[in-house]
Amino acid sequence: MKGSTRDVKSALLDATDRLLSRNGYRKMTIDDLAAEVGIGKGSVYLHFTSKEDIALSHIDRIIERLKTRLAEIASRKTSCERRLKEMLIERVIFRFDSVQHYSQSLNDLLSKIRPSLLERRKRYFEEEARLFAGLVKEGIEAGEFAKVNVNDTAHALLLATNSLLPYSLSTQELGERREIQKRISALAELLINGLTAR
Amino acid sequence: MKGSTRDVKSALLDATDRLLSRNGYRKMTIDDLAAEVGIGKGSVYLHFTSKEDIALSHIDRIIERLKTRLAEIASRKTSCERRLKEMLIERVIFRFDSVQHYSQSLNDLLSKIRPSLLERRKRYFEEEARLFAGLVKEGIEAGEFAKVNVNDTAHALLLATNSLLPYSLSTQELGERREIQKRISALAELLINGLTAR
Repeated sequence: MKGSTRDVKSALLDATDRLLSRNGYRKMTIDDLAAEVGIGKGSVYLHFTSKEDIALSHIDRIIERLKTRLAEIASRKTSCERRLKEMLIERVIFRFDSVQHYSQSLNDLLSKIRPSLLERRKRYFEEEARLFAGLVKEGIEAGEFAKVNVNDTAHALLLATNSLLPYSLSTQELGERREIQKRISALAELLINGLTAR
Repeated sequence: MKGSTRDVKSALLDATDRLLSRNGYRKMTIDDLAAEVGIGKGSVYLHFTSKEDIALSHIDRIIERLKTRLAEIASRKTSCERRLKEMLIERVIFRFDSVQHYSQSLNDLLSKIRPSLLERRKRYFEEEARLFAGLVKEGIEAGEFAKVNVNDTAHALLLATNSLLPYSLSTQELGERREIQKRISALAELLINGLTAR
């Protein structure tokens, strides 16, 4: 039973992704979602309390997937400097790719759920910071990084790259993957220079 | 005549600041604004096309004042490293202080004018970037900074600190001036380490 509950929930989030892409957040209704998955409207409320709850869960899932990718990069056998650069790029580009197909309506979604999302983002930030702190610690122990405060540095690295997350980009910028890739790459290098200095 | 036009416009923006603080953006009306300044409602429309136009002009004025401060810091006789650190802190803290008194309703304002503001922010960003590029160039010429690409670096420095601008902060964070000051200071140091390295 538990498995199938999770399947329906997951199917609803997949459908959310498609509907956001097709119609945007404003036009998305619980009825559409139920129809898209082939269940009754009431069943949607077994899993989610509201349309906003669905949108937030959809974003939660993107972040869970991102964390898996970051942990995978962190566990590689390459230098800490290289892994850090790849993790900084991934945290931007993975999110970028996750919302790319509904970039036109992203502003609409974000302005509607802004207050709840800001709260949520604090938690995402702390979870990501733990992954980055682990690598910074490893880099210091390996003698690759200067002896900085691990947690402060992890937070500073995330803060510094937050401005390139989709949330902070305009619709036009969301269309320019190569440009964003160039910017995060240059920024990651500047930050890592600061860590490897001295 | 031109002088008095500017005075009325300026008085309207001062009144906007007070009304944002007192009532928030949603409750602010053109009638209130006119009454606050002691002019007729029609006269407000001689200067501004809409409530949104007023809010955006109010933000424009904050940025103009900030640019004056940044140019002042850039022209000091201290080391480029020190001036750069002070400019990075100023770009965050000056904005922070400018909206501090209506931090409770800032989210409301920002979500209402988000699309126009995102467009506007591109221009602000370029104007600030020119000021920072000037200092980076000076630092390279003085042998203080590594020979980086001046414009790319100016952009990266702004990008890296954008996440601490009020626009990206939650209401709670807007109440924590000391915490924000600590964060921007740590971030500025990491970035400047990256520039002075090698």
